[in-house]
Amino acid sequence: MDVSVFDHPWLAGLFGDPEMATLLGPDQQMRHMLAFEAAWTRACGRAGLFDEGEAEAAALAIENARIDLTDIAAGMAQDGVPVPRLVRQLKAVAGPDPVHRHATSQDVVDTALALTLKEASDLLEARIKALAASLDELISRFGDAPLMGRTRMQAATMITAGDRIKTWRLPLDDHLKRLTALRSDVERVQIGGASGDRKALGVQADTVVVNVAQVLGLAPTAKAWHAMRHGIADYASFLSLVTGTLGKFGQDVVLMAQQGIDEIALSGGGGSSAMPHKQNPVLGELLVTLARFNATQVSAMHHAVIHEQERSGAAWSLEWMVLPQMLMATARALSAARDLSQAITWIGEPSADGKTTRRDHR
Amino acid sequence: MDVSVFDHPWLAGLFGDPEMATLLGPDQQMRHMLAFEAAWTRACGRAGLFDEGEAEAAALAIENARIDLTDIAAGMAQDGVPVPRLVRQLKAVAGPDPVHRHATSQDVVDTALALTLKEASDLLEARIKALAASLDELISRFGDAPLMGRTRMQAATMITAGDRIKTWRLPLDDHLKRLTALRSDVERVQIGGASGDRKALGVQADTVVVNVAQVLGLAPTAKAWHAMRHGIADYASFLSLVTGTLGKFGQDVVLMAQQGIDEIALSGGGGSSAMPHKQNPVLGELLVTLARFNATQVSAMHHAVIHEQERSGAAWSLEWMVLPQMLMATARALSAARDLSQAITWIGEPSADGKTTRRDHR
Amino acid sequence: MDVSVFDHPWLAGLFGDPEMATLLGPDQQMRHMLAFEAAWTRACGRAGLFDEGEAEAAALAIENARIDLTDIAAGMAQDGVPVPRLVRQLKAVAGPDPVHRHATSQDVVDTALALTLKEASDLLEARIKALAASLDELISRFGDAPLMGRTRMQAATMITAGDRIKTWRLPLDDHLKRLTALRSDVERVQIGGASGDRKALGVQADTVVVNVAQVLGLAPTAKAWHAMRHGIADYASFLSLVTGTLGKFGQDVVLMAQQGIDEIALSGGGGSSAMPHKQNPVLGELLVTLARFNATQVSAMHHAVIHEQERSGAAWSLEWMVLPQMLMATARALSAARDLSQAITWIGEPSADGKTTRRDHR
Amino acid sequence: MDVSVFDHPWLAGLFGDPEMATLLGPDQQMRHMLAFEAAWTRACGRAGLFDEGEAEAAALAIENARIDLTDIAAGMAQDGVPVPRLVRQLKAVAGPDPVHRHATSQDVVDTALALTLKEASDLLEARIKALAASLDELISRFGDAPLMGRTRMQAATMITAGDRIKTWRLPLDDHLKRLTALRSDVERVQIGGASGDRKALGVQADTVVVNVAQVLGLAPTAKAWHAMRHGIADYASFLSLVTGTLGKFGQDVVLMAQQGIDEIALSGGGGSSAMPHKQNPVLGELLVTLARFNATQVSAMHHAVIHEQERSGAAWSLEWMVLPQMLMATARALSAARDLSQAITWIGEPSADGKTTRRDHR
Repeated sequence: MDVSVFDHPWLAGLFGDPEMATLLGPDQQMRHMLAFEAAWTRACGRAGLFDEGEAEAAALAIENARIDLTDIAAGMAQDGVPVPRLVRQLKAVAGPDPVHRHATSQDVVDTALALTLKEASDLLEARIKALAASLDELISRFGDAPLMGRTRMQAATMITAGDRIKTWRLPLDDHLKRLTALRSDVERVQIGGASGDRKALGVQADTVVVNVAQVLGLAPTAKAWHAMRHGIADYASFLSLVTGTLGKFGQDVVLMAQQGIDEIALSGGGGSSAMPHKQNPVLGELLVTLARFNATQVSAMHHAVIHEQERSGAAWSLEWMVLPQMLMATARALSAARDLSQAITWIGEPSADGKTTRRDHR
Repeated sequence: MDVSVFDHPWLAGLFGDPEMATLLGPDQQMRHMLAFEAAWTRACGRAGLFDEGEAEAAALAIENARIDLTDIAAGMAQDGVPVPRLVRQLKAVAGPDPVHRHATSQDVVDTALALTLKEASDLLEARIKALAASLDELISRFGDAPLMGRTRMQAATMITAGDRIKTWRLPLDDHLKRLTALRSDVERVQIGGASGDRKALGVQADTVVVNVAQVLGLAPTAKAWHAMRHGIADYASFLSLVTGTLGKFGQDVVLMAQQGIDEIALSGGGGSSAMPHKQNPVLGELLVTLARFNATQVSAMHHAVIHEQERSGAAWSLEWMVLPQMLMATARALSAARDLSQAITWIGEPSADGKTTRRDHR
Repeated sequence: MDVSVFDHPWLAGLFGDPEMATLLGPDQQMRHMLAFEAAWTRACGRAGLFDEGEAEAAALAIENARIDLTDIAAGMAQDGVPVPRLVRQLKAVAGPDPVHRHATSQDVVDTALALTLKEASDLLEARIKALAASLDELISRFGDAPLMGRTRMQAATMITAGDRIKTWRLPLDDHLKRLTALRSDVERVQIGGASGDRKALGVQADTVVVNVAQVLGLAPTAKAWHAMRHGIADYASFLSLVTGTLGKFGQDVVLMAQQGIDEIALSGGGGSSAMPHKQNPVLGELLVTLARFNATQVSAMHHAVIHEQERSGAAWSLEWMVLPQMLMATARALSAARDLSQAITWIGEPSADGKTTRRDHR
Repeated sequence: MDVSVFDHPWLAGLFGDPEMATLLGPDQQMRHMLAFEAAWTRACGRAGLFDEGEAEAAALAIENARIDLTDIAAGMAQDGVPVPRLVRQLKAVAGPDPVHRHATSQDVVDTALALTLKEASDLLEARIKALAASLDELISRFGDAPLMGRTRMQAATMITAGDRIKTWRLPLDDHLKRLTALRSDVERVQIGGASGDRKALGVQADTVVVNVAQVLGLAPTAKAWHAMRHGIADYASFLSLVTGTLGKFGQDVVLMAQQGIDEIALSGGGGSSAMPHKQNPVLGELLVTLARFNATQVSAMHHAVIHEQERSGAAWSLEWMVLPQMLMATARALSAARDLSQAITWIGEPSADGKTTRRDHR
């Protein structure tokens, strides 16, 4: 029924991001969960926890399983996690023994999340770079144009358009550097078993962890991070800092586009149902909205760090409610920022040559 | 692609609420927007702004229009609102003149929101009452059972189960009373026209407003509330207070259900993929999660009150991102709380007769 | 050491509010706590829980006790509440028996809070009314001046200055109405005893409650609200809605004061260390800051509704960290808004007669 | 009048942190601002912007200036920043020419903040290490003790006390590593001049920047970060992640200390005014409170990244309201966590030898 702006039949026209939505969507999530279960079964087989041939056959069956999502949904309501029903379905096709043995729900869901973050980070990285290139282009085109510097919303001294554009552009380098560091913090397998201590794996624990990690392209971990969520929350903070930077860009554009100020010209721009001639700087506003959205959501991710005992159902599922939305908002903000930067046909003081003047639209 | 827990193919099994989702869903939103446009056209006709017969014909055409949502979505991206494209489509079937004349996008979207809140409030009201009845039933069954009072998470003095249940039950009366008052604050037509001053309607403004309000079952307004959003934010605060109360209930249940405490017995309850015998108090946790979710979201709704000039695209669309989710979370929390209250088969000290003891599950 | 902007030797020059600070300050808090303890002792005496003459003597001793705050501070660190040490000090001067018997820490601290909110609400009410009068005055002076209506930060259609001022003025009526309703929700005695059930008071419970309430000028309560915090959180929401309205006012002023827009003229205004001629609309910015501050803090108050069992030390003390600051921010915003409204010497389109033009300052 | 829990005469007994308060307090802030002004004057002298001997004399006068704080406070109200009045006072003692020339208020206040963060980070670093050592000690004492693992608040499988303690201990290594990286992001001079472009410094800009940085022990910067606030917001996120980890520790302790669970024994602990025998785990609760406080505040710091144009008075002063409190909360949480860890006299299953049993306290 699509109450979310990211999935809504028409609101998603503004807020939606099909690429990120595909990466976060249920099909891909299920693919990641099955990838974990198959890798797990194979790794346990290789470690001698059960017959390797049997493990390979089971892993193939897992990879080819057709999952009944209605049953999984029914399980969610009862179990609070999709995994017990998923495992039951997988056991029906792959045999009871070599499926999910010594693993726990959180191993599956969190490792699938790590795989999601890996793909999402690739996308964000590419988009930050594309935006940086687009802003560099703006600097090369309009960097020397004079512009009134404004502090505390008041005209101060003349600067250049480049001075202002750099406040949108330079933080992107920091964000890229930060993302690189964060990726190694979150692209890690989650393996702990029932209470997170890997005890059931015995001496084979390290072998299994390393093997699963290698197959999935994630880093191994010395201990399960079931109840240590600061890495995920830090990733969420990063997302909000990116949208914060873009929100500053959007806010500046909206202010520069005011009639009477006229320091920017945009191609395209939104119409009004009451005044068809009006050109609204819709993408600039959107960047502000998405920044304030993420600046709010980030709080929930920090609350979720208070994760009691070996697994907090309450704190963990708060992450599920919030993190995907933050990823969507960030991806969309990056594409909107790039579109906006490319729609800019002029930045700088309104020139006296009649091209634009502060009074033209009044 | 369903990244929201409320719409997700399996996560919605836990978080979803089909009834509220229907009320908030795009079909119903479109119905409300068309209802506004039809009522508007008729009211303008009746007020003599154009021919009444022509208005009636146009209104019928509006009510029966088949809307191309793909076009609306494309318009969102450009205009930041669905209305310019909607109006264009309606003019194609109902004639250009009697459609949306002197109205503005925000009139349509906000009045549709008022109609949504009216229906949503009916649902919430019914659910609060049902939950109250269910908790009253608990009090009548277990109210006299002795229970260890706990302050600062430490055993204090013996109270009764009824004493604790009342801390879940009594706030519901306040919430109901508050909802009644709030309804009259938000179930109001939004009518302002281009800059919110109704000037284009001339002396017919009051007639049109009263007529539209009456047809839609909303209250008339003396002035547009385009840029005065405290009523909507107060409604959101109400939603978060309700989930706060239910979060306290859930938190208490989860604490009482700990082995070693054993002050509550629940039928049903969630399974674990690693330990099939385990009974997790999933609904109790869910109530805590939804409460923390809403306690976070409410902040965004308060930021959105800072709504510049006659219409802030940025602040307004922040509401769209947040309010529907708060409604979903509240509706789901109420149904989960009722299910949880009905799953309670015992509250009170673990009895000495062997029924339950604090050590049984260890 | 004054790290808070409200108490800081120079930051309080901007953020501080001496009147509200006095109402919230430790002297007044201690006065309220002692008033509760004295009223409690007298009420218990009157109810026959101990000798009435002895009670009166003890109450007088309580009222005249000199409290050693260093000892109270040491007790906070150990007990998490000031009351155990306070009671020990009072027993030393008023005799052990008739002091605090059957009461609990939360009774004292929360009733003192109710007394604080009563005084704070008087102040807020008076200030809202004063601001309303000041804005009415603006409407009467400049209400008919033409002003460009702006939607989505773009020039729309001409309105009047009065149209915009009303979006600052009208919500104040709603806030006043809301405050009146809220006062009866929070100006109530907190009486529960150890686990909040009043059991220790026996059949005298109602008598004691009514008597204490009457003496303190608060409403009696049927049950302790130790663990039902939605009333306090709703009051906090109200505070944030007020600052939200004022933040909209401030944001509008700041936008109107931009050179190139020049729709408002202000007397006074802030200087710059780099450009002494510059006039910064400091109070307008301050209103935005305080609104965003409260819109953030309100979230913590909603989290604090998730108050486990009979008393949550963790949730309760979160209120202490946040609510006083919200009261300070709201009081200061109201005084700043009034000062700002009185500093306005012109609102409306820059006139052609040379008084102001959009280009003057460039 | 001390409405903040960090400065309050008795609440600071629990919430206060004298060491951090000294670092954040007005005396030290003023010292940092004067250090900037003196370094600035000397650097400009050395760069030949005015006579070097005159500069040295002026710098000495600045360092020895007695500042009238009442005047600064009055300036805050008018200017929104303390610097214009401070500069006026300095010019009175050091001569008008060589003081603050080509600098701006934000250069002074932000560089002073960088100096504060340098000292604060030293303190936090030392405390994180001390806490880590204390938790290592706990692991060495109780690491092998059996403990019931608990997932979703339900008994799961037996783990060891060490398994749980590690979820408190291991994140500290990540926090330390993060702090090291963050320090280089925030311990940087802020130098921009009026609109942040350093234009007034001409070709001497780099020389001045490097010189000021060197004297103050900060890093030089290629561009002013007046309007790029992601570094500061990221630092705030770090603070909240630290308190999140400690909140998890506190929450676990509080849950383990429940009678009926009895998995931890603490020396000391808080008393109750109603039940003097009761031992409340006050520090555990405090850690939860401080974590939720910071998880809320961090949102404001992210909103403040949306910093319009060359300087946003509104966004910048939101930082002043929030960041010092987050630093206080983090410092106090670290000291409380260490005290709590040292108060632990036992972790593990209640033993059967009569030392403690789950029923003892009932």
